[in-house]
Amino acid sequence: MNAEIIAVGSELLLGQINNTNARFISSQLTELGINVYYHTVVGDNAGRLEEIIVRAEERADLLIFTGGLGPTKDDLTKETIAKHLGTTLKQNDDAMNMIEGFFAKRNRPMTENNRKQALVLKDCEVLENANGMAPGMFLEQEGRIYILLPGPPKEMEPMFQFEAKPKLARLVSDGGLIVSHVLRFYGIGEAELEERVQHLLEEQTNPTIAPLAGDGEVTLRITAKANTEDEAWALITPVREQILTAAGDYLYGVNDESLASKLANMLIDHNLTIAAAESLTAGLFQSELATVPGIGEVLYGGMVTYNEDMKVNQLGVPKELIERYTVVSAECAASMAINIKEKFGSQIGVSLTGAAGPGPHANHPVGTVWIGIVFGDDEPVTYELHLQGMRNTNRIRAVKTAIYRVIQLLSDKGYRKI
Amino acid sequence: MNAEIIAVGSELLLGQINNTNARFISSQLTELGINVYYHTVVGDNAGRLEEIIVRAEERADLLIFTGGLGPTKDDLTKETIAKHLGTTLKQNDDAMNMIEGFFAKRNRPMTENNRKQALVLKDCEVLENANGMAPGMFLEQEGRIYILLPGPPKEMEPMFQFEAKPKLARLVSDGGLIVSHVLRFYGIGEAELEERVQHLLEEQTNPTIAPLAGDGEVTLRITAKANTEDEAWALITPVREQILTAAGDYLYGVNDESLASKLANMLIDHNLTIAAAESLTAGLFQSELATVPGIGEVLYGGMVTYNEDMKVNQLGVPKELIERYTVVSAECAASMAINIKEKFGSQIGVSLTGAAGPGPHANHPVGTVWIGIVFGDDEPVTYELHLQGMRNTNRIRAVKTAIYRVIQLLSDKGYRKI
Repeated sequence: MNAEIIAVGSELLLGQINNTNARFISSQLTELGINVYYHTVVGDNAGRLEEIIVRAEERADLLIFTGGLGPTKDDLTKETIAKHLGTTLKQNDDAMNMIEGFFAKRNRPMTENNRKQALVLKDCEVLENANGMAPGMFLEQEGRIYILLPGPPKEMEPMFQFEAKPKLARLVSDGGLIVSHVLRFYGIGEAELEERVQHLLEEQTNPTIAPLAGDGEVTLRITAKANTEDEAWALITPVREQILTAAGDYLYGVNDESLASKLANMLIDHNLTIAAAESLTAGLFQSELATVPGIGEVLYGGMVTYNEDMKVNQLGVPKELIERYTVVSAECAASMAINIKEKFGSQIGVSLTGAAGPGPHANHPVGTVWIGIVFGDDEPVTYELHLQGMRNTNRIRAVKTAIYRVIQLLSDKGYRKI
Repeated sequence: MNAEIIAVGSELLLGQINNTNARFISSQLTELGINVYYHTVVGDNAGRLEEIIVRAEERADLLIFTGGLGPTKDDLTKETIAKHLGTTLKQNDDAMNMIEGFFAKRNRPMTENNRKQALVLKDCEVLENANGMAPGMFLEQEGRIYILLPGPPKEMEPMFQFEAKPKLARLVSDGGLIVSHVLRFYGIGEAELEERVQHLLEEQTNPTIAPLAGDGEVTLRITAKANTEDEAWALITPVREQILTAAGDYLYGVNDESLASKLANMLIDHNLTIAAAESLTAGLFQSELATVPGIGEVLYGGMVTYNEDMKVNQLGVPKELIERYTVVSAECAASMAINIKEKFGSQIGVSLTGAAGPGPHANHPVGTVWIGIVFGDDEPVTYELHLQGMRNTNRIRAVKTAIYRVIQLLSDKGYRKI
């Protein structure tokens, strides 16, 4: 089965928002082993939309539309598809109840416009919208499948995942499957990683190995096609082992794990408590850890001492130390890490201090960052970074590196990493 | 001039990354008054790419390609375009010097593959790549323009902006222009905002008014077509005035301003110092303000007291207060805001405490958040939120609301908002 994903909305063509829906649906279809050959974006224009439908029917048997199901007159996706397929729209009682319930629950009056949203393609299956008013649609006609989804990702994503995807899975289940396994690396460049696994990249057929770099991380996606999940894993496992032999030192996680979720789960699993003192990153390290549910027991918190006086008065970094070494120094980072650990009574203390930009800080060039980590009664360790990006890229990169360094330190101490 | 933006790369169709390049280029073309009617994404497949080119030539006179200019055999954009246009690739000395310089500067050996990147379309103008090795190309042929750009956004964006856009601007300068002005609102729903400006939305022709909602914010983009910038503003201004009369109370900024940049700049302009005590948001409020350059003088920092003991021991919230009201309460928020202000010696103190989820906190349902703000010697003010989203959506929404509330408070005190 070949799919084309068609996003409808002039806001996309004006560059107001990213078409994140195409990425989401593509990754979901890839899991099902459905090939996606094209993404198309078209504006709120019936003529151009119909041309796109004609073209897509020539080259795909699954057409997935996002957007244009709203209440306004700009929204014309279902009207255009109905006309093109020679069918009509009819009011769906479930959809109408859903819409009325939506307004009743929020105690808001319903407008005439909203009734339009209860109209669906005749003979379609309605896809429930748990987060909005526009129902989705699933229609099989003349050997093709048409799926209509709302544009806002928070409505579209759960609708696709829980309503549309199971229907597609049933349709493709006897055609084999695709299993993907993603290995996530930090602290190694894309070029060096590729060089280390060059022989595997050259030989790849099934499974395939796709490198991807971004935001300082590199991933290798191993993808196998097979008849069963076991067969797919029998193809993936030996390749995975060879990759780990070549570059396992830099592996921090797999699949959807992020650096933050990896560290958070290590801390939670081993009941290791942590506190942080942040300067240039201003709370981002702590906030990243706090994205992970369940972190409350081990993330004691910490301080943001953006200002130099606050490093002295609040965090207790000796004034003489700063005068001698400046705030962008190993000494300052070590002092911050030790002091926050002792102040908050945690097992681990982490610090970040440096020059975020745009200008240099204490005569240190933009991008110079010191990270301090102290574990229990150990001596603190410090790391110097020279980042090359813009202010906020550098802040994010500094936080990622600090997280990676804590993961490595815990891993070296024998706490389970993978 | 009508444009089609064609992204080449199987990683997009596999759902590994978002096509942010299309959004970026679209917004840039919109500024130039160039219409974008389609975005297309196609994989690393010469046959399918050529079909897309044929189709795009039927409906656009400006074809902009991103991706597929790298050194590997997967990268086939320029090869396919050369074949399609009946032209050839030749080595460009400037490009070769650029590539050799890139490796020399980084002290890394150059591979044979990289030489391929110095090949460009015969007769094209080379677009310099300041951040990578793949040169871009600009070619006029048979009344159409072909622009080839690299895929990585950090290479593509500056290349488009500084190399390709000036060329396009010269070509379209005598064909009129488009001016857009974006009004940014917070604290009002999309539906209510649209209702307040309903008459304007119905009458719109030139300028047009496009609402857009996302992440709790709503924007109205007013777009005028005219021969000169002055003429465009003469169309925009009266519409802007009518919108502000209808909903100006909720306006926080214009164009690219964010809530964080708005507040940061108000604080910097008026030399107002701020500190924050954060629980569920764990540093995100401070980190958001710190995205803005120049904030260092006024953002004193603050504390993350994720843990209840830390609220008592570090921040000095009375234990009895928490026992009586819990940490999810106006009383706790007020105490946190006052204490952080006094501890850090800032003029403004802000606090966030609540139940981020996934589970309820201190018997308060997920999404219950209290914000506390204290200004100088004023009584603290507190706000209760009942957020409906997932854990991290709620954390972001809580931070945005806190920022918005501080903006409003400063605005009410007579500090300039817009």
